[in-house]
Amino acid sequence: MQAEIITIGDEILIGQIVDTNSAWMSKELNAIGISVNRITSISDTKEAIVTSVEEAMSRVDLILITGGLGPTNDDITKKTLSDYFACELVQDDQLYGKIEERLARYKIGMNAFNREQALIPHGARIIPNHFGTAPCMWFSRDNKHVISMPGVPFEMKNIMQTELLTRLSSEFHCPHVLHQTVMVQGLGESVLAEMLQDWEANLPSVVKLAYLPSPGVVRLRMSLVGDDEAELKAIIKQQLEALKAILGERIFAFDDEKIEQVIANLLLDKKKTVSTAESCTGGNMAHMLTAMAGCSAYFKGAVVAYSNEVKGNVLGVNPNDLEEFGAVSQQVVEQMATGACKVIGSDYAIATSGIAGPDGGTDAKPVGTVWIAVASAEKVISEKFIFSKERGRNIRMASQAGFNMLRKLILNE
Amino acid sequence: MQAEIITIGDEILIGQIVDTNSAWMSKELNAIGISVNRITSISDTKEAIVTSVEEAMSRVDLILITGGLGPTNDDITKKTLSDYFACELVQDDQLYGKIEERLARYKIGMNAFNREQALIPHGARIIPNHFGTAPCMWFSRDNKHVISMPGVPFEMKNIMQTELLTRLSSEFHCPHVLHQTVMVQGLGESVLAEMLQDWEANLPSVVKLAYLPSPGVVRLRMSLVGDDEAELKAIIKQQLEALKAILGERIFAFDDEKIEQVIANLLLDKKKTVSTAESCTGGNMAHMLTAMAGCSAYFKGAVVAYSNEVKGNVLGVNPNDLEEFGAVSQQVVEQMATGACKVIGSDYAIATSGIAGPDGGTDAKPVGTVWIAVASAEKVISEKFIFSKERGRNIRMASQAGFNMLRKLILNE
Repeated sequence: MQAEIITIGDEILIGQIVDTNSAWMSKELNAIGISVNRITSISDTKEAIVTSVEEAMSRVDLILITGGLGPTNDDITKKTLSDYFACELVQDDQLYGKIEERLARYKIGMNAFNREQALIPHGARIIPNHFGTAPCMWFSRDNKHVISMPGVPFEMKNIMQTELLTRLSSEFHCPHVLHQTVMVQGLGESVLAEMLQDWEANLPSVVKLAYLPSPGVVRLRMSLVGDDEAELKAIIKQQLEALKAILGERIFAFDDEKIEQVIANLLLDKKKTVSTAESCTGGNMAHMLTAMAGCSAYFKGAVVAYSNEVKGNVLGVNPNDLEEFGAVSQQVVEQMATGACKVIGSDYAIATSGIAGPDGGTDAKPVGTVWIAVASAEKVISEKFIFSKERGRNIRMASQAGFNMLRKLILNE
Repeated sequence: MQAEIITIGDEILIGQIVDTNSAWMSKELNAIGISVNRITSISDTKEAIVTSVEEAMSRVDLILITGGLGPTNDDITKKTLSDYFACELVQDDQLYGKIEERLARYKIGMNAFNREQALIPHGARIIPNHFGTAPCMWFSRDNKHVISMPGVPFEMKNIMQTELLTRLSSEFHCPHVLHQTVMVQGLGESVLAEMLQDWEANLPSVVKLAYLPSPGVVRLRMSLVGDDEAELKAIIKQQLEALKAILGERIFAFDDEKIEQVIANLLLDKKKTVSTAESCTGGNMAHMLTAMAGCSAYFKGAVVAYSNEVKGNVLGVNPNDLEEFGAVSQQVVEQMATGACKVIGSDYAIATSGIAGPDGGTDAKPVGTVWIAVASAEKVISEKFIFSKERGRNIRMASQAGFNMLRKLILNE
């Protein structure tokens, strides 16, 4: 099964936003055995929409579209596709009610824009959008399928994950595609590739391997396509065992799980709590933990100690040590971690102190130098890292490394 | 002048990488008056390349291509385009020497792949690549121009910035393209559209308007194309005045500036500092502030007070008020803000307390309810918001709203 993606919006063509929807959709479609052979970004004009849809329909049977479904005048996708597929736009009372209710929460009445949002094309299949007002519309003609979704990433993702991907899988005959992700922490891509050289050379040809690096983490992905699902699963199992033997503790998850989710599960399992004391990571670890629903069960709080006064006054770091060893030191980061456990009242704490850059580096402590400590009631473990020259990357890598140190501390207790 | 962009590579179509080249190129081309009317991503096959180049040539006179110029077997762009434009591939001695020298640095000899890298299409214009071995190739036929560049972002950017953009400007007669962005905080897209209905209806036809919403913020963008730059600028100036009269303080910036950058500039300007006391935003405001280089000049620290103990013990919130009014209340959030000023020692503080969701809502305080306070030495201002049902969105919207309240507090002092 082959598909094409069309993303609509002048903001893409003038470079104001990067189209991240396509990559996400391609990955998800590939995972259910639908390959994407072209991605096209076009402007919000009727002509561009009709032309590109017609062209795509001449090449493939399935076209997924995002964008141009907002309530304002520049959004013309619904009208254009409904005209093209000769579907009359009619009011959907349920959608009307939902929009009305939504607006009522903000004490706003319906206006003409909102009333237009409640129109849906008669004859198209409609998949609800739980996070917004623009529904997903599935138009079909002569076994060609054109599916239009909102361009807002989290709305599109929710529509695909909750309903569309399942419907696509069942509607079209797709071969079995299995993906197995292995999350590896603390190794660069090329070092990892070297460690896996022999293993990779002996992989069965049905296994396609990809290295997907992000700051501090490499996702290894094995992809297998075939008709015999049991056979594919057996191959994955065997290769996972081989990988575990080579990488050991460096593997922190076997799915696309984030390291903070691994931490959350460990803490929930042991009924323990954590706090963070962050200098160079600036609250990013707290933000990563609190981005997860239900985090109040294991996360108590954080102190972002950007200035030395906060390190001293709030976390109780000894001012003499700050003076003698500097803020970026083993002594200070360990006191930050034990101080956080005490001040915040948590079982564990992670502390970071480093030079995120771009300025502030010295010969002895260049940009990218980060001390990280993890503390429990019994012990404190600290480690010095030298990450990169780029600020955002240093913040992300230090956060990842801090969580990884806590993971090892908990697992080895 | 209209152009199209084609990006080549299977890694884009399987979602392994996000194509960021197109957005960057589009922005640069727009800035010299070349508008991009389509971006196409295709796979590394001869057929896909030839078909999409031919289609693009039927629509526009200029096509920029990236990708498929590497040394390995899957990279076929050079061969395919050279065949298509009937250019013989001949060895370029200077390029050969450069590749030889490059390999010598790593003590590697030339192999067949490297010798092929030194071939260039006879008859095409060649623009050197200072950061890599694949040069930029400019093919022309019947006033149609196809320019092929490497897909590695920093190589492509260097080629465009050092030579290609200048050559394009001088080769083609380009109209002036002006964009003006207006950043609006605290209004939904449809409410904003309604407020601007009359203004929008009376816009000169040369102005194209776009609404670009993200959580808590709508970016309004006016785009104008014409020959008389002064005239376009005058129109923008006039329309900006009209917008200011309608939206007033809701406009927080006139470029693509983020609100935390606006806050940073205000604080730097007044030599003041800020801290945050975050419950439902969980450290996201601290993270947004510390993501900016140089933030230690105005950001002192934060307390993420997720549990009530931290609100009481660290920030000094009165336990009776926590008991009587609950954590999500005006009383508590105001004490969190004044407490942060005192504990962290900052001139200003922003505090948040709310129900980010998905659980924890009640009839009186549904998911999305957030109290935000901003404090200075002289006063505390607080406001209650009801955002959305989605956790990540509530965190982002509350952070935006908090910064916006601080912006107003500082501006009105």
